[in-house]
Amino acid sequence: MLEALFQTFDEPEAGVALAARLSAFREELARRNLTAFIVPRADQQQNEYVAPSEERLAWLTGFTGSAGVAIVLRNEAALFVDGRYTLQAGKQVDARAWRIEPLVEPPPEAWLEKHLVAGDRLGFDPWLHTSAAVERFAAACAKAGAELIAVDTNPLDAVWTERPAPPLAPVTLHGEQFSGEAEAEKLKRITGEIERLGVEALVLSDSHAVAWTFNIRGGDVSHTPLPLSYALLPKGGRPTLFIDHRKLSNSVRDHLEKVANVADPGALTQKLTELGRGGTAIALDSATAADALSRLVSAAGGKPVRGSDPVSLLKAIKNPIEIKGTRAAHRRDAAALARFLAWIDREAPSGALTEIDAVEALETFRRETGALKDVSFPTISGTGPNGAIVHYRVTRKSNRRIVPGDLLLIDSGAQYEDGTTDVTRTIAIGPPTLEMCDRFTRVLRGHIAIARALFPDGTTGAQLDTLARQFLWQAGIDFEHGTGHGVGSYLSVHEGPARISKLGTTPLKRGMILSNEPGYYKTDAFGIRIENLVLVVGAEVAGAEKPVNAFETLTLAPIDRRLVDLNMLTGDELSWLNEYHERVRHEVRPHVDEATKVWLDAATAPLSL
Amino acid sequence: MLEALFQTFDEPEAGVALAARLSAFREELARRNLTAFIVPRADQQQNEYVAPSEERLAWLTGFTGSAGVAIVLRNEAALFVDGRYTLQAGKQVDARAWRIEPLVEPPPEAWLEKHLVAGDRLGFDPWLHTSAAVERFAAACAKAGAELIAVDTNPLDAVWTERPAPPLAPVTLHGEQFSGEAEAEKLKRITGEIERLGVEALVLSDSHAVAWTFNIRGGDVSHTPLPLSYALLPKGGRPTLFIDHRKLSNSVRDHLEKVANVADPGALTQKLTELGRGGTAIALDSATAADALSRLVSAAGGKPVRGSDPVSLLKAIKNPIEIKGTRAAHRRDAAALARFLAWIDREAPSGALTEIDAVEALETFRRETGALKDVSFPTISGTGPNGAIVHYRVTRKSNRRIVPGDLLLIDSGAQYEDGTTDVTRTIAIGPPTLEMCDRFTRVLRGHIAIARALFPDGTTGAQLDTLARQFLWQAGIDFEHGTGHGVGSYLSVHEGPARISKLGTTPLKRGMILSNEPGYYKTDAFGIRIENLVLVVGAEVAGAEKPVNAFETLTLAPIDRRLVDLNMLTGDELSWLNEYHERVRHEVRPHVDEATKVWLDAATAPLSL
Repeated sequence: MLEALFQTFDEPEAGVALAARLSAFREELARRNLTAFIVPRADQQQNEYVAPSEERLAWLTGFTGSAGVAIVLRNEAALFVDGRYTLQAGKQVDARAWRIEPLVEPPPEAWLEKHLVAGDRLGFDPWLHTSAAVERFAAACAKAGAELIAVDTNPLDAVWTERPAPPLAPVTLHGEQFSGEAEAEKLKRITGEIERLGVEALVLSDSHAVAWTFNIRGGDVSHTPLPLSYALLPKGGRPTLFIDHRKLSNSVRDHLEKVANVADPGALTQKLTELGRGGTAIALDSATAADALSRLVSAAGGKPVRGSDPVSLLKAIKNPIEIKGTRAAHRRDAAALARFLAWIDREAPSGALTEIDAVEALETFRRETGALKDVSFPTISGTGPNGAIVHYRVTRKSNRRIVPGDLLLIDSGAQYEDGTTDVTRTIAIGPPTLEMCDRFTRVLRGHIAIARALFPDGTTGAQLDTLARQFLWQAGIDFEHGTGHGVGSYLSVHEGPARISKLGTTPLKRGMILSNEPGYYKTDAFGIRIENLVLVVGAEVAGAEKPVNAFETLTLAPIDRRLVDLNMLTGDELSWLNEYHERVRHEVRPHVDEATKVWLDAATAPLSL
Repeated sequence: MLEALFQTFDEPEAGVALAARLSAFREELARRNLTAFIVPRADQQQNEYVAPSEERLAWLTGFTGSAGVAIVLRNEAALFVDGRYTLQAGKQVDARAWRIEPLVEPPPEAWLEKHLVAGDRLGFDPWLHTSAAVERFAAACAKAGAELIAVDTNPLDAVWTERPAPPLAPVTLHGEQFSGEAEAEKLKRITGEIERLGVEALVLSDSHAVAWTFNIRGGDVSHTPLPLSYALLPKGGRPTLFIDHRKLSNSVRDHLEKVANVADPGALTQKLTELGRGGTAIALDSATAADALSRLVSAAGGKPVRGSDPVSLLKAIKNPIEIKGTRAAHRRDAAALARFLAWIDREAPSGALTEIDAVEALETFRRETGALKDVSFPTISGTGPNGAIVHYRVTRKSNRRIVPGDLLLIDSGAQYEDGTTDVTRTIAIGPPTLEMCDRFTRVLRGHIAIARALFPDGTTGAQLDTLARQFLWQAGIDFEHGTGHGVGSYLSVHEGPARISKLGTTPLKRGMILSNEPGYYKTDAFGIRIENLVLVVGAEVAGAEKPVNAFETLTLAPIDRRLVDLNMLTGDELSWLNEYHERVRHEVRPHVDEATKVWLDAATAPLSL
């Protein structure tokens, strides 16, 4: 039935001659007079999803998580992963060759300080690390009396004989009916930002920023329509877009050449070198720019100015066309979701469905909209104890049957040309326990507190985060992730710079799209998360002394009424829930079949004590 | 009637030959081959209250605010103050000689960059600035091609002929019945922290830290029982306390010499120089240590390690004896407050009282406890529009009559040997307007949200701050100060490192005392603030998955029921208010006269809709 899903459920390969790979790599290091090397899970742009040609860490270690770094010394080797991947790493890597170490606290630098010895020569590929990361490694080397060496070519690539070719997905234009602003206009605004920074040029080292600026999309990585590329924007002159010419049709190239020179990525180093001569100040994005770029600029005599890429903020603030698009995308997505939720309610109580069945069905309903370009990330479909694993991804092996008494947590999203969605619902299969209802209602109250929040201009996500947690804290519980992340417009489902988290120091501005996703996870028992996307909008408040903002909820899907303990809700909270459901019914009903309409009417019926 | 109040209401002197002072200062600079100089409002320890001998900024400019800096160039001079002092500075300084510039955004360094010219020689006194501040000035000088010069002696002191002598208030022992921990025990704990920092010694450059460590108090500055002093704590050896011997009685000196060497402050530089030889790493507090200390250590060959003074956190966490003491101090203070509030309610409606009358009466009631050592800061007594000035301090000139229809905001505190208090009440004089009640109730709801908050271990003040603001935000209003600051134990009423503010990154720990003081200020109309001190305590929560903390409210004073709009309170909020008032009545009633009892019973009677 489902031939070409965007998602697969295979266990990652394991034990594929990995010991041989590590030996070969060590021999290569020795040939290059290196005693150690750092292999991050990273491409040249610190992307969340990387192309198969960049999966060096997985090739070497077997570990396939989305974050991690390996350090290979002569006689030992360590893989650094964060808490969510400790178990997975333990299963995937060969314990005789690798130690599993923490990625965050303490960081790999601390391990390096202890394990490097004076005279060690630690190599790294400067294209795969930011300058900030390199500075941390350099400090560790200095303390240990070791030397840190930026290599010209990656020694791992020399032994990875079957390394896939880099992706060459065709580039498409993201027309003004979706982008809402011509690339020439965007370039004008960016020039203003370059002037404000007081530099001569800006490097776009983040393909998301390039895609936004030039209104192009691609398919070089999974789940994000990214055309891997760079751009160099001089304050005065014509920009250059660096992208493999094989990805461009003649008509796309002609279109782009109206506003920019188009060159192959290999030309970037030469262009930067030319520009750097004469001490030119060139802005580099500290979060994504490879250390190699900074080195190039410095070596040419230029002045790398590291900071936050101004395009990041411009891109985060959606324009009216993008907002219209996301509302349409959310209505479309909601119809598919309603069909899915009705189907689960119908089919799951028999106990015949599995987590994978849920993923396949949901993607299928979305495909049937005729507009699905991709899922925006691999669906998290966790029932029972699997629901408590925050970053769970179901495989054929982990796949659980969905049975009465369990909660099903399903976190999914879609890429449509007019918008990117991301939604989590927690569904009671059969009668829930009192504990489940208590926890669900606390999460819901936090969700509603964010959804109903009013806040003055200048308020950051850090200032709002606690609103989502307060009712959990009252019960001595919490959730160990942020409350919300920024979301792109037919771009990455995780987009900076704003977020709702104690680390979210960017003020929230009208036009930003964020997720609102508090949760609660009871280890080995169940997981709860309620996630809607929200749009920052202006609010009319009589007597206000400063501009007030609010969130408009974009996601339109019933919240499981069977899990709500009405006695715990205030009148205002209950009104919010009933009004939200009325809106869901009103907006979704016209777009679903008769059976789903019947389900929807019941699922969104008003609640009262 | 009131002969020796701790507070005065004089207008600061103005126009006292200030032009002559500036000329004399410029001549002195020229003699020293300097073209510019920085004069901060600071002593050698960045204290909030400074001794008269340290009031260089006021002497030179006439400006008497508690924060500011002057920069004198050859042909111009600027005074930098923050927003709360812009008006006052404009009135106090000679506009022909001084420009008033912002202290914060942009900072003085930005002004320096523009106004210094190549070849300028900018002097500063390294005893009056932290190293961080000096680094900012150095960067500005580098950009302007000017030279930054640390002077050996302050050129201003050379022309300040009538400079007062440094204070020599006698030092008293803060006995274990108040401190709860012997100095030997404290020194043992600090040694543990020195080891943790990996340094050879720690300099206590903050007299508050010295006072806490050695269980001594003094009277060298206003309102804080501070003995100006330093200490040097080597990891292994005996500590040295640097303090003017004239402040020590024989018995106090004998007591101190049980745990430390006692030396005059002048010996610090020599001791640090000796210790610095041989590359010793010495920890300095980045917030209070003068740049001169860091220079001394470096010049001797040592390694200054700048960071947060570990004593700051130890001191913030009060022990059981200190907690018992603060509870007693708050009960005592509450009796005085109740007498005051009853008196205001009786006397103010006639319109005969002024803001100064209120200050004098309140201090008198506190004096009559027989235990008052000082007020903990000059009382803020603002009625009508004066209430809207956040840092208002009444003078004979600004003094307003308290009249029906106005609100009176009174923010005051006391120093008792067993504890420091800080409390704000807003009192309706005659019938308040609906707007006043709406605003007051929103502030009260925020106050209650903090008072009732439950939060897991690790939660910072930044994470709680929004709870206090949410109800104001709903009306498009806010307050432009933090929600709470730390409070010392018979020490400074403003104590770090924890605070409830978006800048409060220190996790709140059990035993910390903080203020809870949301407000609202309507310019030219009225001001509202409700402030209680709270203590972080553990909370028992059934089913909690992690340790939970709560606030115990320490302050015991009725909150004006006439300003509460009951329709705006939830049931839980109303219960909190009634329970708080019941507790106030129960704890304060035994300690007040009959007339005050009658008033108290009415002021704390339960409210219901």
